[in-house]
Amino acid sequence: MLINSAVYHDGRIVAEPGLDGVSEALESRSGFVWIALRDPTDDELGLLQRELDLPPLAVEDARKGHQRPKVEEYGDMLFAAMHLLEVGADGNLEVGEVHVFVGPRFVVSVRHNSQQGFLGVRGRAEREPHLLGQGPGFVFYALMDAVVDRYFPLIDAVEAELEQVEESMFQPGQDRQAVVQKLFGLKQRLATLRHAVTPLLEVTSKLHGGRVPAVCMALQDYFRDVYDHLLRIQGSIDAARETIIAATQVNLTLVTIDESLVTKRLAAWAAIFAASTALAGVWGMNFEKMPELKWAFGYPMALGAILLVSGALYWRFKRLGWL
Amino acid sequence: MLINSAVYHDGRIVAEPGLDGVSEALESRSGFVWIALRDPTDDELGLLQRELDLPPLAVEDARKGHQRPKVEEYGDMLFAAMHLLEVGADGNLEVGEVHVFVGPRFVVSVRHNSQQGFLGVRGRAEREPHLLGQGPGFVFYALMDAVVDRYFPLIDAVEAELEQVEESMFQPGQDRQAVVQKLFGLKQRLATLRHAVTPLLEVTSKLHGGRVPAVCMALQDYFRDVYDHLLRIQGSIDAARETIIAATQVNLTLVTIDESLVTKRLAAWAAIFAASTALAGVWGMNFEKMPELKWAFGYPMALGAILLVSGALYWRFKRLGWL
Amino acid sequence: MLINSAVYHDGRIVAEPGLDGVSEALESRSGFVWIALRDPTDDELGLLQRELDLPPLAVEDARKGHQRPKVEEYGDMLFAAMHLLEVGADGNLEVGEVHVFVGPRFVVSVRHNSQQGFLGVRGRAEREPHLLGQGPGFVFYALMDAVVDRYFPLIDAVEAELEQVEESMFQPGQDRQAVVQKLFGLKQRLATLRHAVTPLLEVTSKLHGGRVPAVCMALQDYFRDVYDHLLRIQGSIDAARETIIAATQVNLTLVTIDESLVTKRLAAWAAIFAASTALAGVWGMNFEKMPELKWAFGYPMALGAILLVSGALYWRFKRLGWL
Amino acid sequence: MLINSAVYHDGRIVAEPGLDGVSEALESRSGFVWIALRDPTDDELGLLQRELDLPPLAVEDARKGHQRPKVEEYGDMLFAAMHLLEVGADGNLEVGEVHVFVGPRFVVSVRHNSQQGFLGVRGRAEREPHLLGQGPGFVFYALMDAVVDRYFPLIDAVEAELEQVEESMFQPGQDRQAVVQKLFGLKQRLATLRHAVTPLLEVTSKLHGGRVPAVCMALQDYFRDVYDHLLRIQGSIDAARETIIAATQVNLTLVTIDESLVTKRLAAWAAIFAASTALAGVWGMNFEKMPELKWAFGYPMALGAILLVSGALYWRFKRLGWL
Amino acid sequence: MLINSAVYHDGRIVAEPGLDGVSEALESRSGFVWIALRDPTDDELGLLQRELDLPPLAVEDARKGHQRPKVEEYGDMLFAAMHLLEVGADGNLEVGEVHVFVGPRFVVSVRHNSQQGFLGVRGRAEREPHLLGQGPGFVFYALMDAVVDRYFPLIDAVEAELEQVEESMFQPGQDRQAVVQKLFGLKQRLATLRHAVTPLLEVTSKLHGGRVPAVCMALQDYFRDVYDHLLRIQGSIDAARETIIAATQVNLTLVTIDESLVTKRLAAWAAIFAASTALAGVWGMNFEKMPELKWAFGYPMALGAILLVSGALYWRFKRLGWL
Repeated sequence: MLINSAVYHDGRIVAEPGLDGVSEALESRSGFVWIALRDPTDDELGLLQRELDLPPLAVEDARKGHQRPKVEEYGDMLFAAMHLLEVGADGNLEVGEVHVFVGPRFVVSVRHNSQQGFLGVRGRAEREPHLLGQGPGFVFYALMDAVVDRYFPLIDAVEAELEQVEESMFQPGQDRQAVVQKLFGLKQRLATLRHAVTPLLEVTSKLHGGRVPAVCMALQDYFRDVYDHLLRIQGSIDAARETIIAATQVNLTLVTIDESLVTKRLAAWAAIFAASTALAGVWGMNFEKMPELKWAFGYPMALGAILLVSGALYWRFKRLGWL
Repeated sequence: MLINSAVYHDGRIVAEPGLDGVSEALESRSGFVWIALRDPTDDELGLLQRELDLPPLAVEDARKGHQRPKVEEYGDMLFAAMHLLEVGADGNLEVGEVHVFVGPRFVVSVRHNSQQGFLGVRGRAEREPHLLGQGPGFVFYALMDAVVDRYFPLIDAVEAELEQVEESMFQPGQDRQAVVQKLFGLKQRLATLRHAVTPLLEVTSKLHGGRVPAVCMALQDYFRDVYDHLLRIQGSIDAARETIIAATQVNLTLVTIDESLVTKRLAAWAAIFAASTALAGVWGMNFEKMPELKWAFGYPMALGAILLVSGALYWRFKRLGWL
Repeated sequence: MLINSAVYHDGRIVAEPGLDGVSEALESRSGFVWIALRDPTDDELGLLQRELDLPPLAVEDARKGHQRPKVEEYGDMLFAAMHLLEVGADGNLEVGEVHVFVGPRFVVSVRHNSQQGFLGVRGRAEREPHLLGQGPGFVFYALMDAVVDRYFPLIDAVEAELEQVEESMFQPGQDRQAVVQKLFGLKQRLATLRHAVTPLLEVTSKLHGGRVPAVCMALQDYFRDVYDHLLRIQGSIDAARETIIAATQVNLTLVTIDESLVTKRLAAWAAIFAASTALAGVWGMNFEKMPELKWAFGYPMALGAILLVSGALYWRFKRLGWL
Repeated sequence: MLINSAVYHDGRIVAEPGLDGVSEALESRSGFVWIALRDPTDDELGLLQRELDLPPLAVEDARKGHQRPKVEEYGDMLFAAMHLLEVGADGNLEVGEVHVFVGPRFVVSVRHNSQQGFLGVRGRAEREPHLLGQGPGFVFYALMDAVVDRYFPLIDAVEAELEQVEESMFQPGQDRQAVVQKLFGLKQRLATLRHAVTPLLEVTSKLHGGRVPAVCMALQDYFRDVYDHLLRIQGSIDAARETIIAATQVNLTLVTIDESLVTKRLAAWAAIFAASTALAGVWGMNFEKMPELKWAFGYPMALGAILLVSGALYWRFKRLGWL
Repeated sequence: MLINSAVYHDGRIVAEPGLDGVSEALESRSGFVWIALRDPTDDELGLLQRELDLPPLAVEDARKGHQRPKVEEYGDMLFAAMHLLEVGADGNLEVGEVHVFVGPRFVVSVRHNSQQGFLGVRGRAEREPHLLGQGPGFVFYALMDAVVDRYFPLIDAVEAELEQVEESMFQPGQDRQAVVQKLFGLKQRLATLRHAVTPLLEVTSKLHGGRVPAVCMALQDYFRDVYDHLLRIQGSIDAARETIIAATQVNLTLVTIDESLVTKRLAAWAAIFAASTALAGVWGMNFEKMPELKWAFGYPMALGAILLVSGALYWRFKRLGWL
């Protein structure tokens, strides 16, 4: 589905051609065209490929989707794939994609399976014509910057939940299974984030510094900035991941300690009752000559002995910290 | 066993020589020959070696099999080995191999221990003469692409089974041994996949970009595409592997938690019965002066006391979540 | 908030301009200006940016904070971010930041969220005019050196606490949960330290040896010294981290051993009481013909038998080390 | 001890000098000498050093033994050390060594602590004069190839034993200690193999492709073949190692599951007996007014009640899978 | 404290100046001076710095100590720091240091916190004037070689103790806590060794092969030899470390297996006694009509029944391997 299509000259809109009028629009005037598609049909992509002479392998990737983040050069063109992450209904991250074709005179963004649009990016760019006037490379930067900026709240959320788990973990009476399930869920979310960030980090490092594609040449400081943002996210991901691994390990130890405490309590109570039962059993024996059975205060004495033994054991276990 | 042998010129079949007529067929006309063998005898390989002047060390590898995935250059020739993976009867992956000799005027594919043929590849190539006309390099690409494409459903299957385990793992009453066995099986399957993919990834990276063997020179974009597919599979393998490691760890914790729950239940019921038994034991003592034994309602009172104590304990353990 | 602003010539103060007089002060005389800000407002940063022509992306970073340690070149300028670590009220490390802009004729340090000032650095520098006379690069070195020197007591504290844990860990009767909590806390502190040190190490390695920014050129031996300090801290962090991982693992084993000991004791006492109870139960049976019940010394004999069996079991368990 | 000494010209033996006649034999004719020593005395090595002008540091290494696998260049000479592995009496791997000095006109192999000779290598080389005629470099290759080929059955044995453990591990009633002991033993064997293979892999990679020592120059394809074999072994080692780590982890989980099953059974039987005892205790109380004690069918009823309760519990635990 | 100071010419002593006469002694004759200090005062270091014009940053390092192993170039001078390891009273490794300044005409070794002197090195060097005549670089090599050679017995001791643990670990009745404590201690010792060896390995690799400091140029084969020794130690450290990790993991499994065995025994004995008690309880009930109570052989029969049940259970548990 076509969302937007505009030809910009010196940072201002000069035409809004349909998909089938793009090449014509570009021929008749200077400037570049910025086209935004969403979940396009094969026909739309085919049309665009013919109009802009897009490389077949890249179009094939855009058609099939499920690409890893990457930037590939085809002659003087770039094809980029990035992941769009959204929090789904069940709290997990859902992965959409945006593919960007960047040529000397065009930018095409193709969005798949994602609610996150880029109208805001276009709006902001149109309000700063001196930047937009830098051409397709700047649009490419602006899109990438927007994609990367949307990763920050996701990693922040993971960090916040993680901190909460860390704080509660050592408090007594935790539901250990809930802790381990939470940690596992966070780890899965981090994995999704990392698969969006790490390959992108790698390719972004090639958009500044050394040999840089022509279309990004003048914008190296901007791409270094994006790279720096990605490095920061990557650092947070690594830190969170380590914390999760450590916390999972700690949680296992705590489970074992918990069990150990229960075993101790069980041991203590079992001993107290077993002692009482053994004593009662002794006075329940049927020997004829058991003088204390005849004593006037035999029974209270027996009860006293049982309570005394139980109390002594109780006190001892209390001191050992078993009860 | 010879499966196919055809000389192509401008992408069309011009001759179908036997193994012993290959060199003659090539001398008398232009074009290249594409030969497919399956589990060949030493004689067949020896014949081919003489006909096409194949390097002895490479033929030795093809004869012995059990090669790791690789691409080796011998002068203007390439020798490639790739793994063919099939799901066996017991659900494990079985490893076959295909070896490919690529020269300026020939491609020989030798398949070992595998049901997966490449007739489809030949058919598709013959239907696109303009591509097949690019020569042996294109056939090499087409074979590699076919091999790699067949890895996708295998990793997809692993991911699907893994997701199922992840979902069920936290539900109560799981058979923990079945979970750990499943995870271990998936890990083994991933290892097999990785041993097919990782070395191939490494060598494929040398078929585009930098110094590239002459026979692949014009097809760099195609090999980059294969490389990209392999990267994607590798990413999936890494992700699945991490998930399995985490899930195995989580499962151990869950086993320990399960045991802890059982210990608690045991502790609770033991306490309830032990208290009852101790009380009954007291009233079973044989002292002469135990006034309550003579009371009219002594017995119901005792039963009541026993039930009361048991009930109180039951209620307390229920509240603690032990029962 | 402006803390200090001074123009130095040949290592001595020659003027103390306000934020809005910096460019004028530099134009009218030779030397360089050293400005220190703390938690600056956007206006202050904006003013400074115009006065010194600072690069917008760097100023944006300084404004937003939460940067990872880095050194970025913008033409003949450097922008550096470093972490300032302080022990917070709860014993955790709190992360502040200092950003430094270094140009041919200025140094600006911007401190965020930190109590740690650099007045001492300025004082020491002013007492050594021959060093300060080397210009902004030397000030940059002095600031970095001060930041890094403040990491040493933090890692020393971690090492000291860790050593204490190591020593006490194997002593009987430890609170295992306290140990694991302590180890986890130390690991988190180390992570914070590492996120301050590792990226800084990486960038510092580019300030000596190979291609070095012009402003640091003459000071390579100094920056190598800082690099060496960072390497030492990094080594300590790595060692402490490994020790923590090993200690956590050991602690889990010790927990399990502890539990095993408790289980053994429980088993032993349960056996002793169960044997007594079984014996007493036998003599509490109501058979008419139980000759020993009539014996004069039947009861003492029974008590003796019970004590004998209990004693024998006790002695046996003692020898097994279960009690 | 001298085992063999022969001067070869054009691949055929032309002289068999003693240790003290080597230099003379070489001076008087063309060709090269191939000397094999086993556990040589210091005198023998000293003699050889003078005759062939061997570098002192290399001879020192050969004298002391306990070298890691390596290839070192001394001018136009090579000194190589490789590990010879043998299955010892206790099933562990025993490490011997072979040191090889390769010069333009000599090859000396020195074997330490190993039963594995190289007579077969010499025999095979003598049967192929056209290969042996390539000089000392070929002999070096043949020795290395023989050493590496002997690693294959060792890793195959590890893989076979590992597969057996994997298959039996999940079957009920395993001796878990035997499993863990087996896995530990396999891991140790793999470590020995890896310490033979990994350093050799590293040095072999320098004998083909880039800058290659003169003596190996013409044999690069051969050394690449050895390198490829080593890569294959390394791959197998890595795979086996991962499997062992995973299996050890799985085994720990299985131990814990086993324990959990036993605890459940214990809990179940304890509950059944405790219920019976409590009931019997109740009817063993001495209250005067316990009407059921007087009933004609009181006793069978009581027995019935006890059996009923026990049976109900038994049935319940059976259904829970605890029994 | 000054230990030794001598000027050597052509490998022989020609003067023995005090610290304050060094520069004078060097001016008046050719050759080089070799000075050995131990725990020097600041004054001594200051004096030496002025006499030999040592670089301030290096002297500062030597004064403060606690350096990581390193070799730094200052113009035509080298500053090296190495760790001296000694087994302390408690069996742990204690870390001392030796710093070496190497200039074109001097070598200064500064020893800290260590009993290990280098008189033997000096003696050996003086006995081989042709080697000592090679100048300061040779002395530097001799010192480094001596330091590294002293690491071998330390790693050998670790390996021997580790082997002992490995052998005893699987024998029944081990003190598991002692095992884990031993393994932890060995790991700590290895960590100390590694922190001495790994950084030294890295710097030593720069003293041969590529660009080498002038003072070491002629001695590359010697430094490669030291490098090779360090590689060997490193290999041993890595192997021992892996074994420790595996053994710690195995030990945890063995602890759990041990506990499992105890739980089984407990379960078995509990069942036997519980059955006896339940039976005795039944015949201890007070029903009026319990015909067997009146039988002549009722009591022996009851005892028999109890023994029979106990025996049957005992036999069954024996067969299950629980007792």
